[in-house]
Amino acid sequence: MRQYILPPTYDGEALLNLEKKDSQYFIKVLRLKKGDKIIARDNKGKIYQLILIDGDSDSCSLSVEPLDSIQDGESTDTLPSYSGKYPQIHLFQCTCKGKKNDGIVRMATEMGVQSITLVQSRYCVSKKDKKDNSRFNSIIKEAIQQSGSPVPTTFNDVIKIEQLPSIWKHKLLFFHQSELEEQKDLHTLLKNFPLDEPIGLLIGSEGGLSKDECNLLINSGFDPVLLKTNILRAETASIAAISAIHTLLMEK
Amino acid sequence: MRQYILPPTYDGEALLNLEKKDSQYFIKVLRLKKGDKIIARDNKGKIYQLILIDGDSDSCSLSVEPLDSIQDGESTDTLPSYSGKYPQIHLFQCTCKGKKNDGIVRMATEMGVQSITLVQSRYCVSKKDKKDNSRFNSIIKEAIQQSGSPVPTTFNDVIKIEQLPSIWKHKLLFFHQSELEEQKDLHTLLKNFPLDEPIGLLIGSEGGLSKDECNLLINSGFDPVLLKTNILRAETASIAAISAIHTLLMEK
Repeated sequence: MRQYILPPTYDGEALLNLEKKDSQYFIKVLRLKKGDKIIARDNKGKIYQLILIDGDSDSCSLSVEPLDSIQDGESTDTLPSYSGKYPQIHLFQCTCKGKKNDGIVRMATEMGVQSITLVQSRYCVSKKDKKDNSRFNSIIKEAIQQSGSPVPTTFNDVIKIEQLPSIWKHKLLFFHQSELEEQKDLHTLLKNFPLDEPIGLLIGSEGGLSKDECNLLINSGFDPVLLKTNILRAETASIAAISAIHTLLMEK
Repeated sequence: MRQYILPPTYDGEALLNLEKKDSQYFIKVLRLKKGDKIIARDNKGKIYQLILIDGDSDSCSLSVEPLDSIQDGESTDTLPSYSGKYPQIHLFQCTCKGKKNDGIVRMATEMGVQSITLVQSRYCVSKKDKKDNSRFNSIIKEAIQQSGSPVPTTFNDVIKIEQLPSIWKHKLLFFHQSELEEQKDLHTLLKNFPLDEPIGLLIGSEGGLSKDECNLLINSGFDPVLLKTNILRAETASIAAISAIHTLLMEK
């Protein structure tokens, strides 16, 4: 764990008491000793220095002190060397089968996307369960802790693809496998796009997007993109597209 | 299947007889009917038009005709829209635990890397079995067929990281989690790098690379790179780095 994500109930207390699973993780897995330090963030991304005061695998207590910047903190684990700005990528991912969604959510969080919204489109094979939401939130929390991401990635409940134009008012790129007339390449589309402006990214499910869906998206002012590569599976497409956008926006 | 990879024994025959698993795949899974067409490649990447003459799930026969270009061929399945050049990326991947290697090999093949070489480094937890090689080759074949990749990705047997300088005589970028003095960013390193020149890419295992290994690589003229993002797991780092290099080289 590069950093600990504070419970949503945390409200600025100087002392944090943790039990069971959390305590076990600090004491048994990370093997923190009295006086050991770790960086923490609350769900708004604000940074804190935690110091283990005492505890065992049943319960432990830590002191909590707010920090102005991550450079002021200390940690027994390596933090990411890069501490600059991140692009404002918001992932809209058509739901895939079973565990594939888990993998996509985990990798997108590691890459520091701002939000992940699952989308139901015509060729989605799987329907998402209500109980999935808490699993996705656990995956995101774990991925933020492991990767040391400064971005408090949020998970939004599933929407229908037809709702996208009313929900998303910024630029949105959607990746389509077959050629569309209006398709541009990523470099052209991202030329001069500012790093601090939100950008949406829609990835189809295993079955891709239907012709009607492509027309709806184009008519809503969204941009179809041709990735100059092979036909990728949904999970590969998702991480490859995030990395490509990240790389091009960071170039500036 | 976007394209079929011909058996390594194929040697220009005009008629191809397939049995059991292969025949079953054509007839039962893809549901090809008499006269249906599919694109094939041999293990050098040369393109052929296959037409199903006859068959059932036990055995089938197809006619084979060499093609000058993929545009001359027909297929019942969608082929990638992009048919231009690919960068010459060669992946050197430190071996990870269990199924992680499978996922990395699959995604790297989809992305069209030229070769994949597994590397043993100090912090590799897992040792690779001899029997793994045939599994990796099956994964690569399947990924080429599914993605329609024009690149005949090859799999090389495991090497020790110390052997890398004597094996690889081209540019090589290695991604390191913590800051090194000499680290440059990807844009600087790839500026003016030609698309048709081989480029190596080394990704550490879950435990990263040791200080000694970094020194060895730097002293051999290889370039340490800082990805401007979080600390990524090995499988995410691999695909993110391939996509980033692909994107930057294709820009030209």
